[in-house]
Amino acid sequence: MLEHGGRLRAAAQRYGIAEADWLDLSTGIAPYGWALPAIPSAAWARLPEREDGLEAAARRFYGCVSLLPVAGSQAAIQALPRLRARSRVGVISPCYAEHAHAWRREGHELEELDSATAERELDRFDVLLVVNPNNPTGQRLAPETLMEWRARLAERGGWLLVDEAFMDCTPQQSLAGHCPLPGLVVLRSFGKFFGLAGIRLGFVLADAALLGRLEELLGPWSVSGPARELAKALLQDEAGQARQRQALLRDGQRLDSLLRDCGLAPAGGTALFQRLVRDDAVALHEFLAARGILTRLFATPPSLRFGLPPDEAGWARLGQALIDYSKEHP
Amino acid sequence: MLEHGGRLRAAAQRYGIAEADWLDLSTGIAPYGWALPAIPSAAWARLPEREDGLEAAARRFYGCVSLLPVAGSQAAIQALPRLRARSRVGVISPCYAEHAHAWRREGHELEELDSATAERELDRFDVLLVVNPNNPTGQRLAPETLMEWRARLAERGGWLLVDEAFMDCTPQQSLAGHCPLPGLVVLRSFGKFFGLAGIRLGFVLADAALLGRLEELLGPWSVSGPARELAKALLQDEAGQARQRQALLRDGQRLDSLLRDCGLAPAGGTALFQRLVRDDAVALHEFLAARGILTRLFATPPSLRFGLPPDEAGWARLGQALIDYSKEHP
Repeated sequence: MLEHGGRLRAAAQRYGIAEADWLDLSTGIAPYGWALPAIPSAAWARLPEREDGLEAAARRFYGCVSLLPVAGSQAAIQALPRLRARSRVGVISPCYAEHAHAWRREGHELEELDSATAERELDRFDVLLVVNPNNPTGQRLAPETLMEWRARLAERGGWLLVDEAFMDCTPQQSLAGHCPLPGLVVLRSFGKFFGLAGIRLGFVLADAALLGRLEELLGPWSVSGPARELAKALLQDEAGQARQRQALLRDGQRLDSLLRDCGLAPAGGTALFQRLVRDDAVALHEFLAARGILTRLFATPPSLRFGLPPDEAGWARLGQALIDYSKEHP
Repeated sequence: MLEHGGRLRAAAQRYGIAEADWLDLSTGIAPYGWALPAIPSAAWARLPEREDGLEAAARRFYGCVSLLPVAGSQAAIQALPRLRARSRVGVISPCYAEHAHAWRREGHELEELDSATAERELDRFDVLLVVNPNNPTGQRLAPETLMEWRARLAERGGWLLVDEAFMDCTPQQSLAGHCPLPGLVVLRSFGKFFGLAGIRLGFVLADAALLGRLEELLGPWSVSGPARELAKALLQDEAGQARQRQALLRDGQRLDSLLRDCGLAPAGGTALFQRLVRDDAVALHEFLAARGILTRLFATPPSLRFGLPPDEAGWARLGQALIDYSKEHP
């Protein structure tokens, strides 16, 4: 298993601070959402059924007729490499590490590269993996660039796989509206934007034949009944989505500004996280952890990812800790 | 995708009866449970973490120290065939069809057999699949028999895979307390006994090395946070479990008696379902469906599976329909 953010239990043990006392900034998940509708008891009691309104709501939300709900985009990340014979796979790196891990596990030939190399040497690859906007770098690739890559790959039976886990605040940059197209696979995460990471729900947008093969691998009833009910309601709540988008964009700006004000200018980010690339990443991580503030540390290059604080108390606590750090490390 | 029970939407379309008007007896899921505890909002909001108390509660409930929560035992059924090189696999049939389907899909050599053949020719197989008690036949194999088979298989690096989805009413017949042992894999379903099929939760009981490989295939966060919270509470509620067991055993008897009283003696069953093997299975299925009572029809041999009605109204409706059928088909 790879390392991930959100592991409060391990942090509590390591630093001797009770779980409830942490400010957890170690994930890129919205730290707030909005009131959840009641869940009908039948959603718990009965086997979930397809086309119960969830797919219809998702089709409208994503602007794409051909999609499949999955138990978190992670479930698709694990399964998609099984849908291709041994392929040459490029992944624009660094990015969410589970992609490369999954394709390597299934025996594909994997190469990490940057976007300039992807553009120049695309013809060497059968599959190109892109996280857009990228996690943790925040790098954004233009839809036009990606669509051109998609066309070049599709000509040879290849795939462009775009993980849009952090796209919900900037839907205008999504490729969702272009799906389905040959060779285009788009992953969307439900929990990050809606602040419901525990729900385990994501969507794969692709052509129907590919989705049919994916569904066969994932098996029946892969998404829970309550997840389907909640998501169906929230995907239809356009007013709630607009408020959430506004709040996250505002808080993303605020986090960027706070870090800059403390002399810790981010190297990139999205509304949901900011990234610092610094030689003292480990020291800053430990300094914050000693104060019960958990960030996500990356070893190569030494860097930290900060998620959003959930409330004013969290902002104040983070702000004070960053000021203290910058005083001690001028 | 294989055919399954619980597909009310399809039935509603086919028979022109609104979903809400059906008496759904097409699954073997408990049609009632008990009051669910409140779900902490963090269970929805945060990524689920391992060892949050769920594993500990499950270890006590199943009497086994080595287990892995999965998103329904179906998730394990899909993944387990990937943990072995091409094997000769025997499956005691007929049984839940997803087992054979999954092993075939992964390229194993599969043979359907009965339990006498399994006993006699076990040495021809690397893996033996047993659903115990069996669905849909209700056949039970003695723990001693299974443990002997396990030993014979394990000597050659083989597996005995026992799906105990319907074991919770008769825990004394479970192999759970024998796990972990080399070559023994036991699947337990959470939703059937607790009446929570929508929750998507099951457990795999096996040695730690096998569970580690399985977890790697399933990936992180495969079980939702709310499922973990609810199951943690219900697995600790021994009084609730005792009441549920008693109610299901009583209702299982009642269903058996009702069918016999109507001249439709079951060929077998468990507390959660009864099975009729009859040449007129299709006619009886259609007769009941026309009255909004959904049963599960199997083609080979022609047979029907009846789950439990949820309440007295359901019992009365089923009883009347069966009386009407036996009058028309004396």
